[in-house]
Amino acid sequence: MLLLNSDLGESYGSWHMGNDASVMPHIDQANIACGYHGGDPLVMRKTLTMAKDNNVMPGAHPAYPDLVGFGRRSMDCSSDEITAFVTYQVAAIDGMAKSLGIELAYVKPHGALYNDMMARAEVRAPIMQAIAGYHRPLRLMLQSTPQADAHRAEATALGIELWFEAFADRCYDDDGKLLSRSKPGAVHSREKMLAQVEQICKYGTVTSVNGNTLNLTPDTLCVHGDNEEGIAAIVEIRNIIHGNTR
Amino acid sequence: MLLLNSDLGESYGSWHMGNDASVMPHIDQANIACGYHGGDPLVMRKTLTMAKDNNVMPGAHPAYPDLVGFGRRSMDCSSDEITAFVTYQVAAIDGMAKSLGIELAYVKPHGALYNDMMARAEVRAPIMQAIAGYHRPLRLMLQSTPQADAHRAEATALGIELWFEAFADRCYDDDGKLLSRSKPGAVHSREKMLAQVEQICKYGTVTSVNGNTLNLTPDTLCVHGDNEEGIAAIVEIRNIIHGNTR
Amino acid sequence: MLLLNSDLGESYGSWHMGNDASVMPHIDQANIACGYHGGDPLVMRKTLTMAKDNNVMPGAHPAYPDLVGFGRRSMDCSSDEITAFVTYQVAAIDGMAKSLGIELAYVKPHGALYNDMMARAEVRAPIMQAIAGYHRPLRLMLQSTPQADAHRAEATALGIELWFEAFADRCYDDDGKLLSRSKPGAVHSREKMLAQVEQICKYGTVTSVNGNTLNLTPDTLCVHGDNEEGIAAIVEIRNIIHGNTR
Amino acid sequence: MLLLNSDLGESYGSWHMGNDASVMPHIDQANIACGYHGGDPLVMRKTLTMAKDNNVMPGAHPAYPDLVGFGRRSMDCSSDEITAFVTYQVAAIDGMAKSLGIELAYVKPHGALYNDMMARAEVRAPIMQAIAGYHRPLRLMLQSTPQADAHRAEATALGIELWFEAFADRCYDDDGKLLSRSKPGAVHSREKMLAQVEQICKYGTVTSVNGNTLNLTPDTLCVHGDNEEGIAAIVEIRNIIHGNTR
Repeated sequence: MLLLNSDLGESYGSWHMGNDASVMPHIDQANIACGYHGGDPLVMRKTLTMAKDNNVMPGAHPAYPDLVGFGRRSMDCSSDEITAFVTYQVAAIDGMAKSLGIELAYVKPHGALYNDMMARAEVRAPIMQAIAGYHRPLRLMLQSTPQADAHRAEATALGIELWFEAFADRCYDDDGKLLSRSKPGAVHSREKMLAQVEQICKYGTVTSVNGNTLNLTPDTLCVHGDNEEGIAAIVEIRNIIHGNTR
Repeated sequence: MLLLNSDLGESYGSWHMGNDASVMPHIDQANIACGYHGGDPLVMRKTLTMAKDNNVMPGAHPAYPDLVGFGRRSMDCSSDEITAFVTYQVAAIDGMAKSLGIELAYVKPHGALYNDMMARAEVRAPIMQAIAGYHRPLRLMLQSTPQADAHRAEATALGIELWFEAFADRCYDDDGKLLSRSKPGAVHSREKMLAQVEQICKYGTVTSVNGNTLNLTPDTLCVHGDNEEGIAAIVEIRNIIHGNTR
Repeated sequence: MLLLNSDLGESYGSWHMGNDASVMPHIDQANIACGYHGGDPLVMRKTLTMAKDNNVMPGAHPAYPDLVGFGRRSMDCSSDEITAFVTYQVAAIDGMAKSLGIELAYVKPHGALYNDMMARAEVRAPIMQAIAGYHRPLRLMLQSTPQADAHRAEATALGIELWFEAFADRCYDDDGKLLSRSKPGAVHSREKMLAQVEQICKYGTVTSVNGNTLNLTPDTLCVHGDNEEGIAAIVEIRNIIHGNTR
Repeated sequence: MLLLNSDLGESYGSWHMGNDASVMPHIDQANIACGYHGGDPLVMRKTLTMAKDNNVMPGAHPAYPDLVGFGRRSMDCSSDEITAFVTYQVAAIDGMAKSLGIELAYVKPHGALYNDMMARAEVRAPIMQAIAGYHRPLRLMLQSTPQADAHRAEATALGIELWFEAFADRCYDDDGKLLSRSKPGAVHSREKMLAQVEQICKYGTVTSVNGNTLNLTPDTLCVHGDNEEGIAAIVEIRNIIHGNTR
């Protein structure tokens, strides 16, 4: 059954972001910021505790070291740097989670690090190496694309496992990439979003911006709860998933 | 037998600090910076690897979040903040160490956090709670003073164990505190330093600035290798310790 | 006539804080964050532009270097450090303001730096020296207390001028300090707040928590616009001031 | 007459970098870090004071916001962000310089920001706009290349003036770019460096890695004083320049 994941714990110090308390009850996997783009230690502890209370699986959401840019700006880091700072962030949240009695399950890179991972093997490799070199197994979550088999081969070579995610509310281009937000139709209306979820659940496909059918068999769907409407949509998405698996 | 500990891994990015490679072969315990006052993830990995290669026990050296002040400025943080950021730093280096095949053994706070821990129960408590709440046992290293029994009682109440350290090259006042560096005679000449080590080894005491004898039964001695002379002194200290335990 | 000042420009990167656009039309002086506790360069430029458009006098709001603590934690900095980082922040916003065609008028320290300035001469002195040493005259804004004459003497000795501020919504103790927020009655109801403003305007006094009358002849009132109610209160405060000066 | 410029003031907090005191007496222009890749406010003040004492012209050396990467990693920032953070850094050091009685003369971007400026018009434009929009005229220092006329046209359109710099110790490729440091022969021996300086002084040319002659008529030469040898070389370079202009 398709899981739901969401980016949480992105507040920082006195700055508040997101509706974590409203989103947490409706998701399966929480991608939790680890301090490099948001999420100071107090916020991390609070978010992990909330995940525990809601029986949500915690994941690390490591980022480039760029607080003012919220990890959304690509940075030209070396492989060694990437492996080291991903390990640092993963270890920090892993130890905090374990101390709260829960187990970190996976790693989903954030923002520009995620985009660079999808676009360039030189960024993907050191992220995979960080996970492969970690002292216990963790999965890597990345985008479900037509290159999924190649990505799985890279992971298998390093002995790690993957989870693939799709996006409920975003339109795909013919290559299986998300249409850039600057383009018309990039973000689906609610109706289209629900139809896309239904199609993923029933057929394991999405229809691209040009009407082509793309095979996507994601393990998890990324959802956002920016406002009440968004949270209501998460509930509807959940219902569609349940309706298609019973 | 008295162990030797030293603060290492305090470089940061392009800035180099210390002579880690020269000091590491001569010590037993490496207090390794965890990113808050120095020690970016690459430096941490390099320092941990060096500890492993030299069979040195790694310890976390967490600090206040103050890079520009090198963690040397007292910050008025809440108990919750202290517990959370100590846990974060400890978890980060613990996971990195384990991924390199070694085990983090203890926590020694750095700079102003160390001084505040020794001076104020309100800072000592959240540090002890961070360790008590950690998912596996770690020792806390703090200064050997006439209050050692009280500190041990605090630790026992939380179920954690302590290591006490003394300083080879610093003059003590009558209360067992280090004489402020701004005072004459605060830092010992090499001769006085070696005599102080000898006295600690033989009798478990130091002589204060006013000639009083203080009972100190430290587990470990803090040493510095800032230059060739300092490193030579570490070797001599080691010889004194060996000479007094055979 | 009593002016109104407010702390603005405290967003940072992707994190939003405050209702600057709603507050700006109703105040005379904007205390603008300079990057150390909030206010990245884009936020600074936007806030200065808003001040210009509303004909509001811009002031620097420098802080301790503590983003995660929002400048609210006292830090044990040396005099030299304080003078240098206040100058840095003031210079940064001064040059940005001038490039937008407006003139920075004053400096009001933020958070813990403000509190430490009021409490300790060793913090007040380097702040005053930063302003005295600046290449053009700027006023220092500090709290109006029974020590105002002593503060004015310190400033005069350095050749700088002061603006004194009072707080509309805070209860004073008998020494002219703000009652700690942790105490009951520390923050006035709206009714009491408006009465306090009226008393300041008419008599230049406030009534302390114990019923004593304190002489306060402030130049400016600090107001907050955290929500719609707060902004409505600023308008009422403004009306009281106008009603008492016509 | 050809001037000499050098990157200085790159220490940060407790971390020391460079031999500023040894280099300063031998150069004409000091490119001073402004806090984003190095250079905290105390270091900035000290470096500006040293420039003043040695009658050296101070310049701003702004960088991407990347302390741990020392500003050496390209960051994908928007035009607005670049203009804003360059203005912030320039304003900060300008106000500090003026308060010490000296005048900031120019802006030379640091590290990756410099490289991106030379490679991409989209980075060059917002840097030039920051300077064009500054409240008083400042020059922009950039690399002397075969595209110098095009760069001058861009600058003239915005009403700003340029200084072109060449590199004494670096080998040029046929396009007038510096040969990548990873390639053999990228950094000249001392003999070749002195010959290159002589050629620049006499003929306004350099010989590329493939033996082609490139026209370069720089205003200033970038030199480094990383060790005693480097500082001796600066003195020799100075002598060559003097010998060729008398």
